[in-house]
Amino acid sequence: MDIGMIGLGRMGANMAERLARNGHRVHGFDPVEAAREAAAERGIVAADSLAALVAQLPSPRAVWLMVPAGAIVDDTIAALQPLLAAGDIVVDGGNSRYQDSMRRAESLAAAGVHYIDCGTSGGVWGLQEGYSLMIGGDEAAIETLRPIFASLAPAADKGWGRVGASGAGHFAKMVHNGIEYGLMQAYAEGFAIMQHKRDFGFDLHQVAEIWRTGSVVRSWLLDLTADALRKNPGMDGIAPWVSDSGEGRWTVAEAIALDVPAPVITLSLLERLRSRDDDSFADKLLSAMRNEFGGHPVKKDGPD
Amino acid sequence: MDIGMIGLGRMGANMAERLARNGHRVHGFDPVEAAREAAAERGIVAADSLAALVAQLPSPRAVWLMVPAGAIVDDTIAALQPLLAAGDIVVDGGNSRYQDSMRRAESLAAAGVHYIDCGTSGGVWGLQEGYSLMIGGDEAAIETLRPIFASLAPAADKGWGRVGASGAGHFAKMVHNGIEYGLMQAYAEGFAIMQHKRDFGFDLHQVAEIWRTGSVVRSWLLDLTADALRKNPGMDGIAPWVSDSGEGRWTVAEAIALDVPAPVITLSLLERLRSRDDDSFADKLLSAMRNEFGGHPVKKDGPD
Amino acid sequence: MDIGMIGLGRMGANMAERLARNGHRVHGFDPVEAAREAAAERGIVAADSLAALVAQLPSPRAVWLMVPAGAIVDDTIAALQPLLAAGDIVVDGGNSRYQDSMRRAESLAAAGVHYIDCGTSGGVWGLQEGYSLMIGGDEAAIETLRPIFASLAPAADKGWGRVGASGAGHFAKMVHNGIEYGLMQAYAEGFAIMQHKRDFGFDLHQVAEIWRTGSVVRSWLLDLTADALRKNPGMDGIAPWVSDSGEGRWTVAEAIALDVPAPVITLSLLERLRSRDDDSFADKLLSAMRNEFGGHPVKKDGPD
Amino acid sequence: MDIGMIGLGRMGANMAERLARNGHRVHGFDPVEAAREAAAERGIVAADSLAALVAQLPSPRAVWLMVPAGAIVDDTIAALQPLLAAGDIVVDGGNSRYQDSMRRAESLAAAGVHYIDCGTSGGVWGLQEGYSLMIGGDEAAIETLRPIFASLAPAADKGWGRVGASGAGHFAKMVHNGIEYGLMQAYAEGFAIMQHKRDFGFDLHQVAEIWRTGSVVRSWLLDLTADALRKNPGMDGIAPWVSDSGEGRWTVAEAIALDVPAPVITLSLLERLRSRDDDSFADKLLSAMRNEFGGHPVKKDGPD
Repeated sequence: MDIGMIGLGRMGANMAERLARNGHRVHGFDPVEAAREAAAERGIVAADSLAALVAQLPSPRAVWLMVPAGAIVDDTIAALQPLLAAGDIVVDGGNSRYQDSMRRAESLAAAGVHYIDCGTSGGVWGLQEGYSLMIGGDEAAIETLRPIFASLAPAADKGWGRVGASGAGHFAKMVHNGIEYGLMQAYAEGFAIMQHKRDFGFDLHQVAEIWRTGSVVRSWLLDLTADALRKNPGMDGIAPWVSDSGEGRWTVAEAIALDVPAPVITLSLLERLRSRDDDSFADKLLSAMRNEFGGHPVKKDGPD
Repeated sequence: MDIGMIGLGRMGANMAERLARNGHRVHGFDPVEAAREAAAERGIVAADSLAALVAQLPSPRAVWLMVPAGAIVDDTIAALQPLLAAGDIVVDGGNSRYQDSMRRAESLAAAGVHYIDCGTSGGVWGLQEGYSLMIGGDEAAIETLRPIFASLAPAADKGWGRVGASGAGHFAKMVHNGIEYGLMQAYAEGFAIMQHKRDFGFDLHQVAEIWRTGSVVRSWLLDLTADALRKNPGMDGIAPWVSDSGEGRWTVAEAIALDVPAPVITLSLLERLRSRDDDSFADKLLSAMRNEFGGHPVKKDGPD
Repeated sequence: MDIGMIGLGRMGANMAERLARNGHRVHGFDPVEAAREAAAERGIVAADSLAALVAQLPSPRAVWLMVPAGAIVDDTIAALQPLLAAGDIVVDGGNSRYQDSMRRAESLAAAGVHYIDCGTSGGVWGLQEGYSLMIGGDEAAIETLRPIFASLAPAADKGWGRVGASGAGHFAKMVHNGIEYGLMQAYAEGFAIMQHKRDFGFDLHQVAEIWRTGSVVRSWLLDLTADALRKNPGMDGIAPWVSDSGEGRWTVAEAIALDVPAPVITLSLLERLRSRDDDSFADKLLSAMRNEFGGHPVKKDGPD
Repeated sequence: MDIGMIGLGRMGANMAERLARNGHRVHGFDPVEAAREAAAERGIVAADSLAALVAQLPSPRAVWLMVPAGAIVDDTIAALQPLLAAGDIVVDGGNSRYQDSMRRAESLAAAGVHYIDCGTSGGVWGLQEGYSLMIGGDEAAIETLRPIFASLAPAADKGWGRVGASGAGHFAKMVHNGIEYGLMQAYAEGFAIMQHKRDFGFDLHQVAEIWRTGSVVRSWLLDLTADALRKNPGMDGIAPWVSDSGEGRWTVAEAIALDVPAPVITLSLLERLRSRDDDSFADKLLSAMRNEFGGHPVKKDGPD
């Protein structure tokens, strides 16, 4: 079927290509000209503007947003809305906050436009392996897009589904990412423990490979970890600095709002904050306190 | 090849059967007669005593211990040692503390007996899917047992390997289980958050199934979680009571001994302790403190 | 000086009495008649309505709100605002969210009314010992109220101060309460460890008394803890159920928003959530997972 | 009364001086000559050797060890034992592991020598303010030393006491230090949150001073924190590097051994480990994982 993909960055372009490979007619727009040109070479019918994109699509139109979460989504919707008609469907496949998706769905519903929130997992591997899709919103609209979801997912009837009303898709994706933080941190801690046990001189890549087959901790993240350890066993040249992109914070806030203690997901987020604070005021103050009560020497800052 | 399996409980009997299925001649002993009889029906040559078991084995003998970690391992080794000769090999496939394995290896080495520590993962699924094996000890002895490891593992050249000197196998298994605690806790927290978001009425089994295919959090533990949620979506009749079996504690202790902060593995253990404390003295004292300074009412114990 | 106290509950009535004892003329209002009557017996000039209260006060008027944080503060301000004139001063002495205080200050400033946020610590002991006051807002308005702050504080020049612009007072109080959570949890854990060491049969009250004098951990909270342990050493009849009132949550959210890892304050909050969840879905799921992979028995819910 | 102080470092010399000030005849020994000389100038009768020290003391002898925990305590006891007679009393005032104290008490009891474990809190301030003493061991022996404990404590009948049998004193001190870690971390986090809220430009020393009087979080550690913030508000020149000296680790291990979840004390220890790991392998691996699944860029190590 015809679909318009707005946002042709790393994720959007890959998803557009996967759809095109599966026989869909994918129209694409990105404000960056180079992104449009690159997409055109991957089988996408590029449009020069949002208006042109919408004009290219048959009614009822299906438009997929794959743009950074936050204000850009609102701006894009604001620009799209006058171009759309009742019965059209907009999918937000990005990592939007679920409350935003609920608000947007309600707002577009007033104009008869269906707004579908679709949490999308799979990263750069999705092009080949397919994406896991958690979808929220109107059942009939989601059914209309079945050919799209079936093509993006790893299999026509697996790895995707409507999980609830508007917001439910992005809620599930938020939790997915919270879990992801916890899983990653658990592996990272375990390998760090082995790395510090110098007596045994572990080959961390080898251990990861052993675990990949038959162990209780086997997983896709372990597959990737094994790959990373194969390419760079000592993590040479990599800074101990870990970014976080929002969903982890939202998961922590949501857990607390629901009175659910989630210590592992929470600590995984805090460790990322900690990784970026190489001049901790709290630790300096702790050192100063120890000096105050015990006369313990304070380690001086700067070159030894 | 011939091998003696000591301990024919859930794990030992399954491993013995897997070896037998793969053409090995497996001799088995267990102090419980019913266990021996059940093993005999699964293709194991049961022996009535340790002495009989050892007598049945050709030299150099290979004996695999699959008994509960701790004193029983020491007792079994003490009983075995007079029956063994230089060149024989003893494998401890259980969850022994790695320091114990180092001590035992050194002790048996004095008699020329090789002691191999083999961390074994895979649980009840290992019979069909194979076991992941992390092995520590003498290289030549491990090489001698290659046919055994290759049969127990999911594939002849995958899922097993010598990871270092004596103790390294059980060290890697200890860390494996610490990671396992963290992974499990991350999933449990995530599903609990969704379960508490009553507005969306999530079907947790469905979400787990979606994630199993294509998502970043796909894993074997997620497969099992999906199965558990399919069978009992509300976890009805299950007490919120989580056991722990030693390796988690050792991982936490080892991390601290190595100065490695491992908050997620650590908190996963603490949550298990917490799950078994439904009368927390600390929480009562907190409630009493709040009453002391703020006059906040204390919730009374007992029926409302 | 003259001041109007709105809210004559536990905190408000005590503060009003402390001011009256120090020679101020305190006018008081509370929607509950019994609260007004009780206040009248404690030296407060009770008013039957907000309008009456305001009418009793000389210009420029000083009004102190001591009502539950949240909507009631907004409602009270909405009712007050038409009664006030430029130059009047409203103090919010409750535990309002600092962002709310910033918004309210800005809103009242348009009418020339000064809005002062005053974090108030001291609990039920403040009547006798004085209150610690962290104050945000206009410097001149705060200076006008110096006699009030000096009387509420433990000493005229100690235990109170302007800490910054509007919102800074409630921000500091929020952090104060976050720290309080952490301190309380640290003591509770420590006493719980001793309580579980049955071999030594510790008299926890005695240990607390020893620590109160000369130890590094001496504090006012320890004084109260000692008192609680004296009155009820076994915490008999107290449910292990700990409430939380908002500031802890806000502190955790603020720390994350500022990229400051605050694991101890955060975990202190999570433990309170945990104390109220005696049917943890996460723990049930963990138990079910263990059964799935290891065949470990699940503890059944209900009477043994 | 007469007492021998072994170990005239920072703590030992201060305690000896406090005893001398209170009219006791304090004999002192330290292997470092300068320490002996300095002690002599502070009213201590210095001895050149352990043997000389013991010879100077009237029977039954009282000897107080104030040496670093661990092997030095065992070495000192081994050297002392042949010099002592039945009825003599040895006090270990250091931070020994309580299990060691139980072992040593049992060993010395065979020779009729009483071994008293005395947890000592108060740091460098103890000389002026007195020490908090948690004492384990034989009741009669402790009673014999009453004049000593009464002089070391802040008051004759306050701040010290026998808390149980051998080991109980050091157990209580261990927990004391665990709590201390938690309290310190709670304050450090709170001040760090305020320090990062640049909008308000908090004067952290001022806030600490306000809290010292009348607030719920007032404590001796807060007094010291206020002092540290007064002297160096920006913690300039202090490295964010926090030492730990054993008791925190033991508290964490003991809590786990007793099945008591102590998340705040535990995380306080882990944060200290974290403070000393500025090249976290775990964080590097997390960064590499994010790159693997999401193509997220890895921050490079080294100068930008």
